[in-house]
This record gives sequence, C-alpha cells and structure tokens, in this order.
Amino acid sequence: MSVPDPAYWLDAVKWSADGLVPAIAQDVTSGKVLTLAWMNREALTTTASTGEAHYWSRSRQALWRKGETSGFVQKVREVRLDCDNDAILLLVEQHGGIACHTGRERCFFQKLEGERWVNVEPVLEDPRTIYGDT
Amino acid sequence: MSVPDPAYWLDAVKWSADGLVPAIAQDVTSGKVLTLAWMNREALTTTASTGEAHYWSRSRQALWRKGETSGFVQKVREVRLDCDNDAILLLVEQHGGIACHTGRERCFFQKLEGERWVNVEPVLEDPRTIYGDT
Repeated sequence: MSVPDPAYWLDAVKWSADGLVPAIAQDVTSGKVLTLAWMNREALTTTASTGEAHYWSRSRQALWRKGETSGFVQKVREVRLDCDNDAILLLVEQHGGIACHTGRERCFFQKLEGERWVNVEPVLEDPRTIYGDT
Repeated sequence: MSVPDPAYWLDAVKWSADGLVPAIAQDVTSGKVLTLAWMNREALTTTASTGEAHYWSRSRQALWRKGETSGFVQKVREVRLDCDNDAILLLVEQHGGIACHTGRERCFFQKLEGERWVNVEPVLEDPRTIYGDT
C-alpha cells in the first residue's frame, strides 16, 4: 500500500518556473485588498501550519514572515486557490491596521486619475517609527 | 519646451521581464475578490480608455477583453497601483455575476481545509451554455 503524500495539496498548486505564485491578502473585516506578495512552497506550508502569512521576498530572496520587523502580522483565517491553481487568496486579520511598508493601511493607495497615479490614502504611521530607523 | 509623454503613467508601472503585471479584480459591490489575471501595457491602456477590463492571456498570447465570449464583462470603476508599482487592483462591476470560466461567481472557489483544497462555491451556470459548446 502506498502512503498518501501529505504534500499533495502543495503539488496541486501550479508554481511558476521560479517556484512562486502570487498571493493576495484581503482584510477579513473591511474587505479591503491589502497586499499582493509572492509565495513559494515553504511560504505556503508555513502559512498553513502557523496561521500567519509568510511570503517569499523576491528582493531579499528569503522567507519572509509578514510583520516580523514591524509587528504588523497577518493572521490567516482562510486560504483560497483559484480555478487555474496559480493564484492564492488569503483572508487575514491585519494586526496594527497597517499592511504597507509605507505606513499606510494597504499597498494599493495609488489611484489612476486620468493619466496620473494619485496617492489617495494617508500614511498612518511614520515608517521610521515602524522599522526603528532613527 | 518638451511635451509631456502621455504614456508616463504606464512607465511608472514596473512591468516584469515578460512585460506583465498581475491584476486583481474585486467586485465593487460585494467586495469579493473575483479574479487574478495579467496585464501588459496594451491591456492596461485599453482598460483605462474603454472602462472595461482587458487582460493579456498568457495561454493564448493575446489581448483578452474579459467577457468577450461569455458576455460577462467587467466594468471598471477604479484602477489602483500598489506601493512597489508592480501590482494592479481593479474595482469592477461584474456583469452577469459570473467571473470564472467554470461558471462560478469567482475564481477563488477552492478553500484549504486541512491538507485538501475543497470546492466551496457553486457552479451558477454550465460553462457549455456560457461558451456555446453543444
């Protein structure tokens, strides 16, 4: 008898050639789309096992526990996969109410108005305070 | 005097090496995240100029007017760009109430339960009806 592979749910995901999938985080309370980041197998596994959002930082090439520096972690209430198995949706509780490294509630703060991107959401906390730069 | 480049708002977007960015569509009424698709410059330009969501079909390698076959177009109420300029969020009115080619309201219908992806949303219309296969 063959033993079922416990990682089969990971194999269902269509990872890109780089081993990544895009992962959307949506605030479970407000419904706002907060962030789009990237996951590899380790990030998705760790997210599922810990209940806290983990991503793959493409710039740092490292596993990244969201909020590890700022404290603004994302508690994961639900993990969804799309019809093509190549995109993830997380429903999260965003601790601290700030998801963006700029100190804003969320990353999607630039709105297209005519032919301009306009910042339409306020900075809630100075990033220098959040990240301890002095 | 130099004439401003009308495409500068497109140049602000950090296109991938393939010339693409991921684009999330969120239902402006329900707040549900419907789809994640991909845009190139032409798709984003056309979306902005027509007010209807256009994507780049990676499988067909062609510009794709969402709903061109099914009639389930996405009327775009708002276009957002994230802090890193490499992800788009559309707020849309989803015509017909079906965003997914499987005939479901949206593409994110697989929910992780333990180590299984479970389909948790119903098929609202048979895809053979939607796409005219007989």
